[in-house]
Amino acid sequence: MNRSRIWIAMAAALAITCGVAQAAKAPVAPPTLADVIKDSPAAAWRELDPANTLYMDVAGGRIVIELAPDFAPLHAANIKTLVREKYFDGLVVLRSQDNYVAQWGDADEKNPRSLGSVKPRLADEFAVPIVPGSAFKRLKDGDIYAPQVGHVNSFPAARDPKAGLTWLTHCYAMVGVGRDNDSDSGNGSSLYVINGHAPRHLDRNVTVVGRVMQGMSLLSSLPRGTGRLGFYEQPEQQLKIASMRVAADLPAAERVKLEVMRSDTPTFDAAVSAVRHRGGDWFKYSPERVELCNVPIVVRERK
Amino acid sequence: MNRSRIWIAMAAALAITCGVAQAAKAPVAPPTLADVIKDSPAAAWRELDPANTLYMDVAGGRIVIELAPDFAPLHAANIKTLVREKYFDGLVVLRSQDNYVAQWGDADEKNPRSLGSVKPRLADEFAVPIVPGSAFKRLKDGDIYAPQVGHVNSFPAARDPKAGLTWLTHCYAMVGVGRDNDSDSGNGSSLYVINGHAPRHLDRNVTVVGRVMQGMSLLSSLPRGTGRLGFYEQPEQQLKIASMRVAADLPAAERVKLEVMRSDTPTFDAAVSAVRHRGGDWFKYSPERVELCNVPIVVRERK
Repeated sequence: MNRSRIWIAMAAALAITCGVAQAAKAPVAPPTLADVIKDSPAAAWRELDPANTLYMDVAGGRIVIELAPDFAPLHAANIKTLVREKYFDGLVVLRSQDNYVAQWGDADEKNPRSLGSVKPRLADEFAVPIVPGSAFKRLKDGDIYAPQVGHVNSFPAARDPKAGLTWLTHCYAMVGVGRDNDSDSGNGSSLYVINGHAPRHLDRNVTVVGRVMQGMSLLSSLPRGTGRLGFYEQPEQQLKIASMRVAADLPAAERVKLEVMRSDTPTFDAAVSAVRHRGGDWFKYSPERVELCNVPIVVRERK
Repeated sequence: MNRSRIWIAMAAALAITCGVAQAAKAPVAPPTLADVIKDSPAAAWRELDPANTLYMDVAGGRIVIELAPDFAPLHAANIKTLVREKYFDGLVVLRSQDNYVAQWGDADEKNPRSLGSVKPRLADEFAVPIVPGSAFKRLKDGDIYAPQVGHVNSFPAARDPKAGLTWLTHCYAMVGVGRDNDSDSGNGSSLYVINGHAPRHLDRNVTVVGRVMQGMSLLSSLPRGTGRLGFYEQPEQQLKIASMRVAADLPAAERVKLEVMRSDTPTFDAAVSAVRHRGGDWFKYSPERVELCNVPIVVRERK
């Protein structure tokens, strides 16, 4: 046995470029995702916006979250205020529920930390009006939950043109705002991230604020909590948040240099095309379709 | 702040029963998933089949896998032979790739373990003929990847009636057979489990053999490998498999007592209905739809 045999879906994962031998058989082999990335121009990428990027530092490393203020301006502003007032420093990841969410915030119910200048209630941003002319790169394969789905500024999103509304979708690594029963009971002081199959039934029920762009495995690989809903039963099981910072507040030299493939580019179209059509030596059947949360959001280090 | 505020999607996760106050507002509150489970008759459940259930014991506990021989008779037989010849005992989980798969097998490329009485090549079972009259509980909301989807014997599956074919789908916790480029290059000696959003593009490209029915968090919470495709770079990072056994080979008293909700029952229909329609105090918007991999496969201890 050699290791290649057990690399299931090697091509699936990285879309290995066809070699010369294959090219001879199929002269116009369609580009793979790896090809698309390799051949992409600089203009196909954008830097994470320092003004809306958060660094959450934990024992294992740094988690980089980009906020999407176009979809949740009030909550993004609240979260940045909380971060700047160091609300999250020393708080914990208090819940990890398998195939659902990891959630962080204040675990102390009796003596909760002050929210500082942030008000405890905030109007919900479950869905927002569609801005005419905004860059929505629509996926052509449809969706089970929404009339239209696609990408806006590299974030997965859905639209209901009849209602004139759009919202971010609960794909893997998306970050949302915890709330109680009342729609305005969330304020950004407790956040969660999707760690499994997209729970799309949460769409339009919570304010989704952004996405983990790097360091997701620090949250996805946490031991699952054994309490109800995955809460940790012992404080020592909780992962401590050393600090949360807004990238723009750090000197440029200290920021994480990351860029994401822009969804409003021909490169992104080619990437979607590459995952719809699976070629190469490994695939025997190509879906010729792709579902929203299976479209890769490609993030890489910026040179 | 009290903890309830940060229990996002409490109702989403456990579908809390509406209380009396809600019943007064809406006298015929639709049942939640918790209601459906609570009110279910014994006949709505089936014991995991001991002849096709595997116990994979690791340092943290036991992982229970049920095979689906109707979809992969050759591979299920191979895997049981390998298990009975103790092929897996002492092997390792050698790969954990975020939002994709964890995979186990033989990490020793130079001196691979003997496959015993199992042949290295086996005809693929990527899809199998539809058996007329078999119990396929079709989901009505459609699918992005397949003409029809639903459940067979509590496993998520897809169908192409025109082609006369059916196959298990790559939902979370489903187990598949690693292979090299050739369709017949898998044999069951290397297995993987889906640990993130369903990579449905793998459907019909690998033989899916079953599902992790208990202990999934032991595999999903593994640290992600830092090598290419999530391979662990150091042997000490690999999780050791103490043993794999067929449940039927253990005395009945030593088996894990588990049962799964039968998909060919009115109870299952009610469960699907409950997750399509989300009511209660927490939900503000109900999807009225559900996607295949979001249908809960409910497993519980058998009394």
